Amino acid sequence: MTLSKLPYKGTRDLFPSEKRVQNFLFEKMHTTAQLFGYEPYDGPLLEEVDLYRAKSGEELVNEQIYRFIDRGEREVAIRPEMTPTLARMVAQINREAPRPIRWYAIPNLMRYERPQKGRLREHWQFNVDIFGGKENLAEFEIFSLAITLLQSFGANASHFEILVNHRKLVDCLLKDKMKLSDEVALKLCKLLDRYKKLPEAAFLEQLNVFNLSKDQEGLFLEYLKLNSFENLQLFLDAHQIGSAVWDFKTFFQMAKEFELTSYLHYDPTIVRGLDYYTGIVFEIFDKHPDNRRALCGGGAYDRLLEIFGEKPLPGVGLGLGDVTLKDFLQSHGLLPDMSRPTNDILLTFQLDGGMAPTMRLAQALRAQGVRVLTTLEALKLNKIFPLAEKRGAKCVSILDDQELIANKVAIKNLKTAQQVTFDLHDLGAITKFIMD
Amino acid sequence: MTLSKLPYKGTRDLFPSEKRVQNFLFEKMHTTAQLFGYEPYDGPLLEEVDLYRAKSGEELVNEQIYRFIDRGEREVAIRPEMTPTLARMVAQINREAPRPIRWYAIPNLMRYERPQKGRLREHWQFNVDIFGGKENLAEFEIFSLAITLLQSFGANASHFEILVNHRKLVDCLLKDKMKLSDEVALKLCKLLDRYKKLPEAAFLEQLNVFNLSKDQEGLFLEYLKLNSFENLQLFLDAHQIGSAVWDFKTFFQMAKEFELTSYLHYDPTIVRGLDYYTGIVFEIFDKHPDNRRALCGGGAYDRLLEIFGEKPLPGVGLGLGDVTLKDFLQSHGLLPDMSRPTNDILLTFQLDGGMAPTMRLAQALRAQGVRVLTTLEALKLNKIFPLAEKRGAKCVSILDDQELIANKVAIKNLKTAQQVTFDLHDLGAITKFIMD
Repeated sequence: MTLSKLPYKGTRDLFPSEKRVQNFLFEKMHTTAQLFGYEPYDGPLLEEVDLYRAKSGEELVNEQIYRFIDRGEREVAIRPEMTPTLARMVAQINREAPRPIRWYAIPNLMRYERPQKGRLREHWQFNVDIFGGKENLAEFEIFSLAITLLQSFGANASHFEILVNHRKLVDCLLKDKMKLSDEVALKLCKLLDRYKKLPEAAFLEQLNVFNLSKDQEGLFLEYLKLNSFENLQLFLDAHQIGSAVWDFKTFFQMAKEFELTSYLHYDPTIVRGLDYYTGIVFEIFDKHPDNRRALCGGGAYDRLLEIFGEKPLPGVGLGLGDVTLKDFLQSHGLLPDMSRPTNDILLTFQLDGGMAPTMRLAQALRAQGVRVLTTLEALKLNKIFPLAEKRGAKCVSILDDQELIANKVAIKNLKTAQQVTFDLHDLGAITKFIMD
Repeated sequence: MTLSKLPYKGTRDLFPSEKRVQNFLFEKMHTTAQLFGYEPYDGPLLEEVDLYRAKSGEELVNEQIYRFIDRGEREVAIRPEMTPTLARMVAQINREAPRPIRWYAIPNLMRYERPQKGRLREHWQFNVDIFGGKENLAEFEIFSLAITLLQSFGANASHFEILVNHRKLVDCLLKDKMKLSDEVALKLCKLLDRYKKLPEAAFLEQLNVFNLSKDQEGLFLEYLKLNSFENLQLFLDAHQIGSAVWDFKTFFQMAKEFELTSYLHYDPTIVRGLDYYTGIVFEIFDKHPDNRRALCGGGAYDRLLEIFGEKPLPGVGLGLGDVTLKDFLQSHGLLPDMSRPTNDILLTFQLDGGMAPTMRLAQALRAQGVRVLTTLEALKLNKIFPLAEKRGAKCVSILDDQELIANKVAIKNLKTAQQVTFDLHDLGAITKFIMD
C-alpha cells in the first residue's frame, strides 16, 4: 500500500522556507507583546465541548468544531479559538491576581470549514487580552499593540485600517429603536456580519426576508450608510442614543490624544460573530484592493468568567491569524525573502583525514555561538561554492592537504571575497573573522 | 450551570510563570538547532490514522492515539509523534533535495495515556532529524546536538548519560543466535524495553513465561549483564557477531575522536518502542537518583519513506519532550527562577492629567525597543514600588504635579536607586538611562 504524501485537507505542511516566515511572524508577536508588558500563557489543545457551548455560540459548536468522545466518555474538542481557554484560566487566578491582567499566546487552532484564501482548517493565532483595565484605555492599548505589531513589519495607515463598532449600539438600534425581538435581532446581526461578503442585491434580498416595516427599514439603511465618526455622532444625536450605550465622546477624544485617528474608522457592519462580545468590536482590514479582508478581529467582553461562577471582569482582546497576516504582508510586498536558510559558515574538508579536525573545529565554533553547517564527507573544491550559496552560508572553510599538514584552515568570506589562513586552534581569530 | 475551571485530564494550563520556562526551553532548542544548521519545519496537527498504522506500531495506534472520524468520513488522529509527518513531508521533496536534509521542529503532541510524572497526555517535543547523512557521522552529529543543548543549560556528564544500543544487534541475538521466531522475538524485545521499570523478580517471572531453553536463557542473561563498550566488544567477539550487524569498532573509534566517550554508555536494554528504528537506538538518561528516567530518545531508521513509494533513505533522529527536560533541569537545580516577569520600566502617573503624556511617552519608548508596562489609572507614590517589584520592572517613572507643570518626568532605577529628572521629550536620554 502506498500512502498519500499530502497533508490533511485544509492544513499545511510548513517546509523550511515557509516555517522561517512563520517563525519571523511569531518573533515579532512575542517582541511586541513584551514591549507592552504582556505575559505569555498557553493552554491545552483539547477542551470539553461544554466550554464552547457556553461561550462561543451555536454555529461554531455545531458546524465548525472538531469534536469527539474520548476513551473516558468525555465530549472533547480541539480548540477552535483561545478565548474560552483563557477565560477558564483567568477564572482560576481571578481573585488574587493584581489588575490589569495582561496576557498573550500564539496557539494553533482548528476549525472545520471549507478551505479558502485566508481561511484554513488549522492556523496559528496571536491572542492578546487585557482584563480589569479601565474602559477605553484598555481598548486603546490593544489598538496600539496591534498597530505597533504591524508597524514592526513596515506597515502603516496606508496599508491597513481599524474598523470599529460597538455591540451595545447595534443592540440598541435593533432592539430598542427598531423593536425587533432578540431572535430576529440576532439574525439581522448575522446578516450585518456578512454585508461585505455579499453583493448588494443579494444583501437586500436577504434583508427583504425580515419583512421590516418602512420605518424599521429606513432606520436600518440610514445606519448602514454611516461611514465616519462624524456621521455616527450626528446619528447618535438624532436618535438620542446616549453615552450609556457607547461613551463615544470620550472614545473619540482619546483617539485624538493617542494620535490614532488616522487608523481608526467607524464601520456599522462590524459586529463579530462570537457571542461573548459586549462592548467595542473591531476588525483590522487590509486596504489593498486585491486583499480586502480582515486580518485581525477583537473586542470587549464583560461576562466571560460568569460560567465559572466568578464575578464579571471586563476584558478586551484581539486575535490575529498567521495566515491572514502573511497574506496581508505579501499583498503589500512587506515580507522579506526567506526561501534560503542562513548559516555563518559551511565547514568543509577535501580529504578524509580532514574529517576529525573539522568536526572538532565545528564543535568549538558552535560553543562560541557560530552557526556551523558541516559536510559529512570530503567535498571537492569546485563543489563548495554552489553548496554554500544554496545553504546561505556567509563563509566557507578549505581544508586540503596543504592545510592539513600545517594544521591550518583557510576561511573565505563569500561577501567580501576576503580569504585568510588561520592556525586550526586559533579559535578567537577564526570566530572574529566569521562573525565580523 | 457552572463549568469546571480545570484543564482536560493529563494536560496543562501554562500560566505565565510556567510558560516563561517553556519559552526559555524552546529558545535554547531553536538556538542549538541553528548552531548545527538545522532548518525549521512544521506539519499539521491532524494526520490520517493510516500513517501511524503503517509506521508507529500497533500499540500506539490501538491504545495511545486520539483518533476519530471527521465530518468527511476520514479516520484522523491528533499527532502522537512527529516522525511519520516528517517522513511524509520528506517524501515530497526527497528526489530534488540536496543531502543531507537537516530539519527540526517543536510540535505539540497528544497521547492517550495514564498521566504520571514526566508523562502527560499533551506535551511539546523537540524533534531533530538528519536524512542522507553518512552512517555514524549522522549519529554523532545528533549526539553532539543533544549534548550541546543540555550543556547550554549548564548540564554535563555528571548530570546525564547517553545510553546506546543497536537494533540489528538485538535482532541478531534474538533471532539468529537464540533462534526465536519474529513474533516471540518482538515480545521479548518489549520485555527488554520494560527492564528498568520492573523489579528484578517481576522481570524474571515474565521472562519465565517465554519458556526459553537453558542455552537461550544463558545467552540472554549474559547479554543483559553487558554494561560497557569493553564488555560488549568481548561479547561480540565471543559470539562472532560481526561488523555487518554493527560496525562497532568504527563507532567506538569515532566516539573517541569526537571526545564523546564520557557521555556514551552501552546499555543492552535500550530498544525503543517504535517500530521504525533499524540501527543505533539511544536514550538520554538523567543520572539524578530521584529522577532516573529518559528525557530523550531516538535512533536510526532506513525505510521510513517506503510507505510513500520512495526509495530507502537513511535517517537519524531524536525526540526530547519539554516535560521531561524541565523535570531533568529541576532535579539538578539548573532551571532559573522565572516566577516573575521582567519589564524595563513601569510607567506611572499620579494625577489624571498625567495619563495622556504617559501614554504618548510609553509609545515613543516602545518604538525604541523599551519594554514598557503602564498603569491604566493614577497611582499613588507609595503604591509604585511594590507594584514594580511584583511586575519585575527595572525602573519606574514618577509624574506628579511638579513634573507635569514643568513637562518633566522623574525616572528611578530600582537596582542602583539612582533617580534622574528628564525633559518629557528627551527620548534619547530617557531610553539610555533605562536601558543602561
